[in-house]
Amino acid sequence: MADVAVLGASGYAGAIAASLIWRHPFFELKHVTARSESGALLDEIHPRTRVPLVLEDWDADEQGEVDAALVCWPHGVSAPAVAALRERGVRVVDLSADFRLRDPAVYEDWYGRHGAPELFGAGVYGLPELYRESIAGADLVANPGCYPTAALLALAPLARAGAIADVVIDAKSGVSGAGRSPSQTTHYVSADENMTPYKVERHRHTPEIEQELAALGAALPVTFTPHLVPLAQGELVSCYVTPARELGEADVTGLYHEAYADEPWVEIRRGPPGVLEVRETNYCRISAHFDNRTGRVLVFSAIDNLWKGAASQAVQNLNLMFARDESEGLT
Amino acid sequence: MADVAVLGASGYAGAIAASLIWRHPFFELKHVTARSESGALLDEIHPRTRVPLVLEDWDADEQGEVDAALVCWPHGVSAPAVAALRERGVRVVDLSADFRLRDPAVYEDWYGRHGAPELFGAGVYGLPELYRESIAGADLVANPGCYPTAALLALAPLARAGAIADVVIDAKSGVSGAGRSPSQTTHYVSADENMTPYKVERHRHTPEIEQELAALGAALPVTFTPHLVPLAQGELVSCYVTPARELGEADVTGLYHEAYADEPWVEIRRGPPGVLEVRETNYCRISAHFDNRTGRVLVFSAIDNLWKGAASQAVQNLNLMFARDESEGLT
Amino acid sequence: MADVAVLGASGYAGAIAASLIWRHPFFELKHVTARSESGALLDEIHPRTRVPLVLEDWDADEQGEVDAALVCWPHGVSAPAVAALRERGVRVVDLSADFRLRDPAVYEDWYGRHGAPELFGAGVYGLPELYRESIAGADLVANPGCYPTAALLALAPLARAGAIADVVIDAKSGVSGAGRSPSQTTHYVSADENMTPYKVERHRHTPEIEQELAALGAALPVTFTPHLVPLAQGELVSCYVTPARELGEADVTGLYHEAYADEPWVEIRRGPPGVLEVRETNYCRISAHFDNRTGRVLVFSAIDNLWKGAASQAVQNLNLMFARDESEGLT
Amino acid sequence: MADVAVLGASGYAGAIAASLIWRHPFFELKHVTARSESGALLDEIHPRTRVPLVLEDWDADEQGEVDAALVCWPHGVSAPAVAALRERGVRVVDLSADFRLRDPAVYEDWYGRHGAPELFGAGVYGLPELYRESIAGADLVANPGCYPTAALLALAPLARAGAIADVVIDAKSGVSGAGRSPSQTTHYVSADENMTPYKVERHRHTPEIEQELAALGAALPVTFTPHLVPLAQGELVSCYVTPARELGEADVTGLYHEAYADEPWVEIRRGPPGVLEVRETNYCRISAHFDNRTGRVLVFSAIDNLWKGAASQAVQNLNLMFARDESEGLT
Repeated sequence: MADVAVLGASGYAGAIAASLIWRHPFFELKHVTARSESGALLDEIHPRTRVPLVLEDWDADEQGEVDAALVCWPHGVSAPAVAALRERGVRVVDLSADFRLRDPAVYEDWYGRHGAPELFGAGVYGLPELYRESIAGADLVANPGCYPTAALLALAPLARAGAIADVVIDAKSGVSGAGRSPSQTTHYVSADENMTPYKVERHRHTPEIEQELAALGAALPVTFTPHLVPLAQGELVSCYVTPARELGEADVTGLYHEAYADEPWVEIRRGPPGVLEVRETNYCRISAHFDNRTGRVLVFSAIDNLWKGAASQAVQNLNLMFARDESEGLT
Repeated sequence: MADVAVLGASGYAGAIAASLIWRHPFFELKHVTARSESGALLDEIHPRTRVPLVLEDWDADEQGEVDAALVCWPHGVSAPAVAALRERGVRVVDLSADFRLRDPAVYEDWYGRHGAPELFGAGVYGLPELYRESIAGADLVANPGCYPTAALLALAPLARAGAIADVVIDAKSGVSGAGRSPSQTTHYVSADENMTPYKVERHRHTPEIEQELAALGAALPVTFTPHLVPLAQGELVSCYVTPARELGEADVTGLYHEAYADEPWVEIRRGPPGVLEVRETNYCRISAHFDNRTGRVLVFSAIDNLWKGAASQAVQNLNLMFARDESEGLT
Repeated sequence: MADVAVLGASGYAGAIAASLIWRHPFFELKHVTARSESGALLDEIHPRTRVPLVLEDWDADEQGEVDAALVCWPHGVSAPAVAALRERGVRVVDLSADFRLRDPAVYEDWYGRHGAPELFGAGVYGLPELYRESIAGADLVANPGCYPTAALLALAPLARAGAIADVVIDAKSGVSGAGRSPSQTTHYVSADENMTPYKVERHRHTPEIEQELAALGAALPVTFTPHLVPLAQGELVSCYVTPARELGEADVTGLYHEAYADEPWVEIRRGPPGVLEVRETNYCRISAHFDNRTGRVLVFSAIDNLWKGAASQAVQNLNLMFARDESEGLT
Repeated sequence: MADVAVLGASGYAGAIAASLIWRHPFFELKHVTARSESGALLDEIHPRTRVPLVLEDWDADEQGEVDAALVCWPHGVSAPAVAALRERGVRVVDLSADFRLRDPAVYEDWYGRHGAPELFGAGVYGLPELYRESIAGADLVANPGCYPTAALLALAPLARAGAIADVVIDAKSGVSGAGRSPSQTTHYVSADENMTPYKVERHRHTPEIEQELAALGAALPVTFTPHLVPLAQGELVSCYVTPARELGEADVTGLYHEAYADEPWVEIRRGPPGVLEVRETNYCRISAHFDNRTGRVLVFSAIDNLWKGAASQAVQNLNLMFARDESEGLT
């Protein structure tokens, strides 16, 4: 057994993370914290969790006496909390962007000043399908963004094969991706029966996708545009790849089956995926197509943005860090 | 031509009211005001209005130089603005609750202190199907609440016939009824795929319904429970009436056809109404049923809460106040 | 271990039932059948189940070699299949209406000719919170309808206390309640942004509710009206009770806490429930209110119509029939 | 005044077309036809139309005695009806694909045998913003598909400037785009909370887009992928253009403002459009962006698939054919 604290458990991803740890056979949920709703019961705020713990104010002395922590805070405020936890030897999965990037200048460009520069770059990028071995030995894992999770799983087989000359990523996410803070954007009347591109040219997941594609052998600027669609949870990423070399349908199919044959949480299908098929699961469902007319490769990838795109992937990482079965508590 | 100001045009009902006046053959939209978004163009905030006017800060001297005003502010803050407008001789339709009730004690019970006690009771209750003649000569009209509009049109024929011994009103409204201010309740992720009763036993439309039923001859306490349902606009009111005397299917049908045969905006149908059938219209669609098994009368009434339940009914009232065709600008 | 067949696994409730049995620690899913989609894999038709079994044509010889069966067929066609299974000694939970009613004349009135008259009345009514002991020894359990489940759990404490003089039940259900067969009613464009009463005065769950209320001591005709609301899964039942004797808030609260204190799947809350709070669970969440103004008791009850209203309650019954922990495989 | 028949008025586009003609100052709606629901009133089937005409069986002798017809039938069955109408001298706007393509081999490839080969190619492509003059003199206008409408308006300024080297079109449509026939795809429970690509590599609007882009100067195979999203009406097209020559932000902005400055139904905006902004209007709302990082041009285009993508554009065309103001009856 290992004791776990979930920081930021009043947000959507934090609440699911807390719920997964609460029911986990190995981990024990010791603390849940919230910045503005402390004092309330988690299951009053998020009834579906059915976790009857009181949300506490974050205090390193109080909640630092655990073996591991999932930090579900926004970038910027996350780094100092992670630093405090690491000082106590707590193993951390950080769900913010603070430890995902490896170039400090890129971080500063897209996010501003880092909150714990001494730890910058100390995290392992927590996409198990790419970095399983490094995660297993890590003390600090940077849980990927939701869009990078779906996009990288969609593109990794092609990137590793040196087959990407150019790529357009058109992504669509449900409203929970915008977070739990009420705003005009997330108001039911604004989002319902609507859809719209957002953060055109400047979504912060862009450098993260580029960094990891480069690490896989495809160093190129990507065109990435997210869209808001009227559903609560679910994310679909449509990738349009101009191949770097001649490919056929069989090559494409082969690459994906080979890459993911043994992956417990990636499902390769012939037909394109729907987000409902992976709702409230840790699965990423992918279809890859070679278009004879245009010579392009089309890859579609669906995840639940709050699960594989955040909370359940964090637990998958925690399992690996503690040498447990990667899927424990996720089925 | 008559010049009109719409106060509170950044809210949902206010924006629709402004849009209707903007396209009205007789009225001319001179001013639109907002409390917190002044300076912006109305059609930036509400693109569907396509009204390219700048939202102004409310100032009685500025916007008081009009012939009429639609006041779309919340109760409490509405009354003083109405008073300022009336002092200048401006004819007003007030969409708040401030002038709907006729008993000051009841107002204070449900809403607290009134903002312009000298004007209390000066308004005519603006349900044209019941008070058409009084509205025609009025300077101040209190536009009914959305639930009272649907409920009273549903129950008036029975009330006038002395046929109501008891009534349960189960009402369901889309999320726009909760207003445009973002909150956890109106967050897409909270409202989507959800439905729940709210303000059980204490919704402020209760005394308004009781007052008007009493005026129609049915003085009784009503059981009224609103529910929030996952759609943007639309309201359905299901009324379960215990009859005060013996009735049959033919009696019920007769009462409703007689009451509404000549009403331009009430549609009586055999089958129960759906809210989509009246979406973005001034119609109220009603079906009345006599249940042989239980002896109850069931009446279902559907409106668009922002149109017949607020903005378009306000324009209907304004038409009457200026001796125009009641339906002008609404078809 | 006990072998189980799920008949009608291509429907919504059947697919969930199959999925629950597939993951159940004690039961083993041996067969899944479908009438029109046999030959397909269940998880192709219902990807969320992730049950890789082939849907078979129903054949008593083939699928009758099991210990138990969940029959998820419509009334009428269900009874003969149940009879064939019972002949082989298979223990059955039938999710149709064929074995719920105890008066054959009432069945014929509401449903027409029964498909296995020799078995009529042989089923135990499968609402565990009311009939736990009888279910434990039963070979044939009639799983309750979704509306009766929510309504009876809402009303049982008052009915048993002799406190119901009259009741109006206003029920709201998501679209999955209309079944998986495509129709104009279930078309997205018809149901989206809409809500409407349906089967006014004549929904077939009425006699079932009346039968069970009578058994609890409240023999009276109920007014029951279902409404279709735009969400996939979830059911809310609003009950308006005219008390048969004087009650206060404390009496009402006391009755509900006493009735359900030890029930694993009934949650009593102060505030009214939302259907999202019980989505994809076996929970029924209830709030009961005494309205001082009118003297009425208001009870709100929320379930997932496909879970507690069908599939998971069927598994709860099966657990009881096999002397397993009632909650096994449901948490 | 001119008499008009609407063939196929029971479908979504047909019902809106009928409703627009019914309220049109110049055209008079004489006939509405339906293939399977004849005998019913149009406003029973589509209550929002409030068109109290009886749907008739199609009979060229009966409904051919009009000045114009809008044919809202599927491709294949549309052509023979159009031919029969043209023989009687009736001016026709055909909403199917039967007269959109100019190369019979391409038609046969994508649609199969044509139903009136003698008329093949006789239609003018009815995108007023591109072909206003030809439409004005035409007897047969082929109303564009919904995706081509949005895509071509998005791409025309770049295509005419010879600035398109390559383009990816990622399109998203509400469920009404799949038509009114009930199916598993359009079932509420399938579409709700879901989104998925469909007809990958083989949507029939592809050759139509390519034909018209070529006519504008951009002869190239396009990558076009539609997606189904959970809303009733609305279509968003995201275009990712690799420029054929060096461009900057100012060039892009300039091209779009120049192209559409005088267009009554095209709105150019800085920020990306939402489909709700054009719901139930004839507007196409576009934003164009130059991405400095990648050198790509991004263009987003939103329409209502049933209005500008079908019915209201058909009326816009009919206005032009009868030398009326292009916007008559559409505001």
